[in-house]
Amino acid sequence: MHRKTFIRSTGLAAAAFLPAKELFSATNAADPKVRVGMIGVGLRGQNHLRLLLRRDDVELVSICDISDVMLTRSKDAITKSGKKMPVVYTGNPYEWKKMLAKEKLDAVVIATPWEWHKDMIIGSLEAGIKYVGTEVMIGITLQDHWDVVKAAEKNNGHVMMLENVCYRRDVMAVLNMVRQGIFGEMIHLQGGYQHDLRDVKFNSGAPGGGKGCEFGPKAWSEAAWRTNHSVHRNGDMYPTHGIGPIAHYININRGNRFTNLCAFSTKSRGLHNYVVNNCGESHPNAKVNFKLGDIVTTSISCANGETILLQHDTNLPRPYSLGFRVQGTNGLWMDVNKGIYVEGKSAKPHQWDDAQAWLDKYDHPLWAKYGKEAQGAGHGGMDFYVVNAFIESAKRKIATPMDVYDAAAWSGITPLSEQSIELGNQTVEFPDFTGGQWMYREAVFALGDDF
Amino acid sequence: MHRKTFIRSTGLAAAAFLPAKELFSATNAADPKVRVGMIGVGLRGQNHLRLLLRRDDVELVSICDISDVMLTRSKDAITKSGKKMPVVYTGNPYEWKKMLAKEKLDAVVIATPWEWHKDMIIGSLEAGIKYVGTEVMIGITLQDHWDVVKAAEKNNGHVMMLENVCYRRDVMAVLNMVRQGIFGEMIHLQGGYQHDLRDVKFNSGAPGGGKGCEFGPKAWSEAAWRTNHSVHRNGDMYPTHGIGPIAHYININRGNRFTNLCAFSTKSRGLHNYVVNNCGESHPNAKVNFKLGDIVTTSISCANGETILLQHDTNLPRPYSLGFRVQGTNGLWMDVNKGIYVEGKSAKPHQWDDAQAWLDKYDHPLWAKYGKEAQGAGHGGMDFYVVNAFIESAKRKIATPMDVYDAAAWSGITPLSEQSIELGNQTVEFPDFTGGQWMYREAVFALGDDF
Repeated sequence: MHRKTFIRSTGLAAAAFLPAKELFSATNAADPKVRVGMIGVGLRGQNHLRLLLRRDDVELVSICDISDVMLTRSKDAITKSGKKMPVVYTGNPYEWKKMLAKEKLDAVVIATPWEWHKDMIIGSLEAGIKYVGTEVMIGITLQDHWDVVKAAEKNNGHVMMLENVCYRRDVMAVLNMVRQGIFGEMIHLQGGYQHDLRDVKFNSGAPGGGKGCEFGPKAWSEAAWRTNHSVHRNGDMYPTHGIGPIAHYININRGNRFTNLCAFSTKSRGLHNYVVNNCGESHPNAKVNFKLGDIVTTSISCANGETILLQHDTNLPRPYSLGFRVQGTNGLWMDVNKGIYVEGKSAKPHQWDDAQAWLDKYDHPLWAKYGKEAQGAGHGGMDFYVVNAFIESAKRKIATPMDVYDAAAWSGITPLSEQSIELGNQTVEFPDFTGGQWMYREAVFALGDDF
Repeated sequence: MHRKTFIRSTGLAAAAFLPAKELFSATNAADPKVRVGMIGVGLRGQNHLRLLLRRDDVELVSICDISDVMLTRSKDAITKSGKKMPVVYTGNPYEWKKMLAKEKLDAVVIATPWEWHKDMIIGSLEAGIKYVGTEVMIGITLQDHWDVVKAAEKNNGHVMMLENVCYRRDVMAVLNMVRQGIFGEMIHLQGGYQHDLRDVKFNSGAPGGGKGCEFGPKAWSEAAWRTNHSVHRNGDMYPTHGIGPIAHYININRGNRFTNLCAFSTKSRGLHNYVVNNCGESHPNAKVNFKLGDIVTTSISCANGETILLQHDTNLPRPYSLGFRVQGTNGLWMDVNKGIYVEGKSAKPHQWDDAQAWLDKYDHPLWAKYGKEAQGAGHGGMDFYVVNAFIESAKRKIATPMDVYDAAAWSGITPLSEQSIELGNQTVEFPDFTGGQWMYREAVFALGDDF
């Protein structure tokens, strides 16, 4: 399939069906179930696993992981669900390649450390799997991002980054407001990841974690891999929770695009201090030189004249906040103070309304429809929606509502912010992963009440 | 006096006296009153005027303005105060030069449109006046800023920018907390000017204002001049309310300095929309092409590894907020949600405390001392403090607690942000107005309980 045709397909509105023959070589037409394989069933993967097990339209064909502990937990969950036990791949870090070669899969769900995503996405696409759902970040370097985009185009596959915050209830109510023009023309947007991850980046190494100063091979769970990115890299390591919702608000890759980016970083103190304060100056990790600045601030310009501000703040003590601000010519929403102001409509001039009444009034139809099903699905329910959208897209053989171009643009902020900081806060051009098609693609995310 | 000597003098702690012979040629030693002249007694100037009239240590020698309305109001205030009527200079825009040549003044207070400040400051210094208090912004171009610095050095004069927000009660309580190390080592700071100025930038032109879409010569008060800066310039037009307090928190020019800056601007919609919505598309000002982007976001790096984020947002409907965030290794304060979090001291882990109890506990000694006097002084009392500091410095013949280097660094953000935007968001180097002396100068602002 040529690039143009592919792009046209993925640009179709969510309700439109694509010809099955083009997309679904692996699908048995008599069986409406989506045949899913999972690469990575660690803590995050198990969350997806539980959601997949709840669905009658999914057949879990195979799972793959290198951790016995995680596989045992996963198999327990599967047994409890009453569903058929999938084929289990394990034993070495490349068993996923065997799984992709052997199993007939419609879709794969990837929940592994960041540095594995690119190879697993491309491997899945090259194995002919048409739906690849991946945890956030589709690569490390900018070239990784291009490689994933090109692989999706070449293999006519759908890559959906499972960015759950796009489905957060308040985020979607605000999307509803934005689309109804409540805030007027969009002007400036903010978001980010402000989350004290010190207890995630370090633990004792015992199964289940526990307070400690270990990371890398000695540590449990995310500290085994995630912390190394704080040792060796400096940039916005985790932009997607902030940029995903923002990208929908201003139709990035769908009539708009990011044009340039500049990132600033503070000194690095939080992680070192954590080790010293909790484990003493003699702990070996007190000698580690953490490269990641405690706070990284990134500005982005957009083709339609909006600016975006992203903040990454994971090494210091602080309350959790994604720091959203959605501002247009008529007013704005901010989540840190739970405030909305709309000129002529707010109760008092120049004073914040409590946002909740607005968020209730503009609750997104999807939340009205699926709110009950979403309960208990993780992260306040939004995990249900992102998995639902992925599976429904695969089942209906249509483009996912967030695609490989979205994934590349959002995840690509990380290497671009690293570049900018490395060059002394130089502003860098933002690549156009769509090859000019952003001017023609239409907005599809959460239109209608389907997904 | 040589540069070095001058800098050493202005770097002295606030309690130290300078030799009178060097600084006070115009002062009568038998008269402890500070002889003050005022250039500009418009709305802002009248605020300063009322504060000066309340003081027994001030002799108001002369006032100067081109507006009969403003002079009448000022003279009424003076008459009411029972103080002696000063010499009045008026008639043409350069009468201030005559005033500076004729009157023997210890100090001058400048409250005129931005574009006049540089000439009036330098004119005052060259007339031998040793204390120049000026409303914010000391120039338009970067060269203006250098010219003011060089004139202060050459003439051995003190230039204090009357940035009142440095004295806001919560801002000073937080300064107190910062100096006591409550937040730990400073990491990241935010501030700005987020104030819907549309009713300031436009009015009917009638004395006293009134709703309308006029600006320039036809308009009343600030709209007569301020709005033109929104027509012809794009940058952070008003950085000092945000950067002043921040500069004190991290000792800018006193062991630290700004090293580079990058600014991003949105499209410009707010001012045009205001004209169209209020006065129709046929109003002549509906054709004006306002250059100022609605929101300007500026990032600054500091020598000691902190980052600063400034926001300028004056063209859109929104609640007022200076958007402060003061974050260190132990915790942070934000004013938008009135929250403070300090690890191990806040009531609950990872949850905001209501800031008020902290602000009360760390209320700055100056507010405990002068709080009553400050009442009714304008802008919640902070205007009292800034005028008080200026007059007390002149009376005691010591360096002002904020000096020409502070003024240049803070006000210089405007032309630097314009440059950065003009160059496509390029990061520009921040000049060192102190010529390397920032490494040796000591913090002086609001130390002790004097001013």
